[in-house]
Amino acid sequence: MAEAFAAVDVIATKRDRHELSDAQIDWVIDAYVRGIVAEEQMSALAMAILLNDMSEREIVRWTNAMIRSGEKMNFSCLDQPTTDKHSTGGVGDKITLPLAPLVAACGAAVPQLSGRGLGHTGGTLDKLESIKGWRAQLRNDEMMSVLREAGCVICAAGNDLAPADRKLYALRDVTATVEAIPLIASSIMSKKIAEGTSSLVLDVKTGSGAFMSDLSRAERLAETMVRIGNESGVNTRALITAMDVPLGLTVGNALEVEESLEVLAGGGPRDVVELTITLAREMLELTGLDGVDPADALSNGRAMDHWRRMIRAQGGDPDAPLPRAQHVHQMQAPTSGILTRLDARAIGVAAWRLGAGRARKEDSVAAGAGIRLHAKPGDAVRGGEPLLTLHTDDPQLFESAMQAAWSGIQIEKTDDQPLVERLPLIIKRIR
Amino acid sequence: MAEAFAAVDVIATKRDRHELSDAQIDWVIDAYVRGIVAEEQMSALAMAILLNDMSEREIVRWTNAMIRSGEKMNFSCLDQPTTDKHSTGGVGDKITLPLAPLVAACGAAVPQLSGRGLGHTGGTLDKLESIKGWRAQLRNDEMMSVLREAGCVICAAGNDLAPADRKLYALRDVTATVEAIPLIASSIMSKKIAEGTSSLVLDVKTGSGAFMSDLSRAERLAETMVRIGNESGVNTRALITAMDVPLGLTVGNALEVEESLEVLAGGGPRDVVELTITLAREMLELTGLDGVDPADALSNGRAMDHWRRMIRAQGGDPDAPLPRAQHVHQMQAPTSGILTRLDARAIGVAAWRLGAGRARKEDSVAAGAGIRLHAKPGDAVRGGEPLLTLHTDDPQLFESAMQAAWSGIQIEKTDDQPLVERLPLIIKRIR
Repeated sequence: MAEAFAAVDVIATKRDRHELSDAQIDWVIDAYVRGIVAEEQMSALAMAILLNDMSEREIVRWTNAMIRSGEKMNFSCLDQPTTDKHSTGGVGDKITLPLAPLVAACGAAVPQLSGRGLGHTGGTLDKLESIKGWRAQLRNDEMMSVLREAGCVICAAGNDLAPADRKLYALRDVTATVEAIPLIASSIMSKKIAEGTSSLVLDVKTGSGAFMSDLSRAERLAETMVRIGNESGVNTRALITAMDVPLGLTVGNALEVEESLEVLAGGGPRDVVELTITLAREMLELTGLDGVDPADALSNGRAMDHWRRMIRAQGGDPDAPLPRAQHVHQMQAPTSGILTRLDARAIGVAAWRLGAGRARKEDSVAAGAGIRLHAKPGDAVRGGEPLLTLHTDDPQLFESAMQAAWSGIQIEKTDDQPLVERLPLIIKRIR
Repeated sequence: MAEAFAAVDVIATKRDRHELSDAQIDWVIDAYVRGIVAEEQMSALAMAILLNDMSEREIVRWTNAMIRSGEKMNFSCLDQPTTDKHSTGGVGDKITLPLAPLVAACGAAVPQLSGRGLGHTGGTLDKLESIKGWRAQLRNDEMMSVLREAGCVICAAGNDLAPADRKLYALRDVTATVEAIPLIASSIMSKKIAEGTSSLVLDVKTGSGAFMSDLSRAERLAETMVRIGNESGVNTRALITAMDVPLGLTVGNALEVEESLEVLAGGGPRDVVELTITLAREMLELTGLDGVDPADALSNGRAMDHWRRMIRAQGGDPDAPLPRAQHVHQMQAPTSGILTRLDARAIGVAAWRLGAGRARKEDSVAAGAGIRLHAKPGDAVRGGEPLLTLHTDDPQLFESAMQAAWSGIQIEKTDDQPLVERLPLIIKRIR
């Protein structure tokens, strides 16, 4: 009765390739949360946005309307600058685990809201939940106390943070409208801005294992998010990074925690260390702490110390042994030569089939399931030697996981001087 | 579990501008009726169809899938050829009322399923319901018996006829996806083909008062529907006709019945008579009865005879006085000159505001409400003489109705030799 607009008219505006007005955007998000705009109306609008796009003004307004649908957190009572990182997700991407305590060790506070995995990419919370006792769900006061205690906290977003985004994301998932750049950008940024961080580094992945496999789309997404962040007062920049090959040498929940501990102990695979330090430098620069060298905090154990404090403050036992899968199977190189291809998506799908990921939101994940890599593209391999070790609790899953993995592997004879095409780890910096 | 497709993949196919396969179309319609494809998924698909279009093969398949969602009627037991007309709807379009009995009087059987009005255009069933006792809802056996008795029947489609279309239409109405030509064409044609008529003439309106105000879109819709009909074994052709100006001299339910009776009595406004006879000739030609002249059946009273039999067989009293609105108001020409514009949409909206139409499906209509026109474009008018008479049961509605009507009226001085732009009544014939 007293509604400012009719949903049909708002949908028709975008359908007919016009820009939505500020008032239309504010109303449609608010009315959607109130149940006045029905799910079927929002899905028609989402499809129209996906196909007809949005201007920058529309995306910023949409993001702010989603933020206003819930509470906004505030860390200004801390006497430290806050900074956060968000990755668009990839295979073997465990960077948040060593990064948050590393940046905390360098003097910034890291209030990191994370998510769970869906499909072939893993989720940070799933990984941390393989640690005995660790809790992802924290009340706001608990989050603040972990942050004071450890300098960093990694936890699930509460129900009051951008509830419009949660409702819309569930809808997009079943209506083939996840891929719209304006909706991806506003979904990520609404949560990050509502979280109250004062600076943010975005790790936008590109390549077969990434959500945005296409570089130009990844760039557009990164540019859009950087602009939304800066317009909303969050000091934001983005790196576009490689996701054509899995990050590090492990894919799977407990396996990735294990590898993160290696990095925090001053070791670990070269690419994981490089990306962790690069992102830490960006975050520190944004908070004005650019005199500090994060590499030192890895080698002198201070990052590990912050990790242990954070895990403990969230109920976890940092010394408890990590879960292991009940069955392992080695995939051996069929011939000797150079490994020229180890496709991130294929390996991600294989790990997912072993039980490391979920097909539906309701599913649970197997903590020990996953894959350990014994070679990366460019490495020489010998016939009969192990390429991958598969871990699962259900040996019936080996068959279909191997099928997926083999589809992403290529070995070429050394005599043919094979060309290994790989994306550079850090592709571009957007600020 | 045993579903052939996932809804998300079908939506993504159309979203990504690919053609849907026959199997995808059959599945999505069937699964929608079964509730496996949710409303929000179908609305995303409908928006993708609206924006990315469909091939002819897809539209024909979609139509047939909707037909198969319900029963198919069969009039082959009649020893007469069957024929039907469908109009895309316009202001003052009462043609079905005299046309069905006229064609019946010429020897063809007319099983006419009609609809109700929504928005500024009227519905045939609403008009006939102003006749005391007349019933729109008939069982199939009742429909057949009226058809045997009167040679024609005008009634509502039963719930078992193309149920997928009814469900989809209600969804499109609230999601701004009514305007998709593939969905309009398949909606109309699925009902007409399921109705079991052996031939069909489509009256596709164009101009301000039509659903397709743009001529090229009206042509595309007409061509699409003619092809669907002929490919499905229904001998189909279409006329594109004018809807820039209201048809005849009345707009409103009982007022239009009154005018239809004038036509059946051998009189009536020239444009209504011409369109009725033209459509009757097309229908008779399609049924092989092209030796008969429908004009004779109007002048010799045989069409009126069939009308009275049909009304009586459906419970109506053809001699009962028609309802009249309680209040009338005359709008007078402000100056003398030539009426150069009498916009169909403006007059339709005015009649709707007087109570002749409904804003929502649940609303009822006022039988006596509407507008009587005293001049048509090209006519000379004198200042102070009546232009329109408004009829309503609620005098508070005059103000906003007049506002709408005046916006569509233009009178120019005779000395200026004004140009009256009007579409020809019959614009194009498509077969």
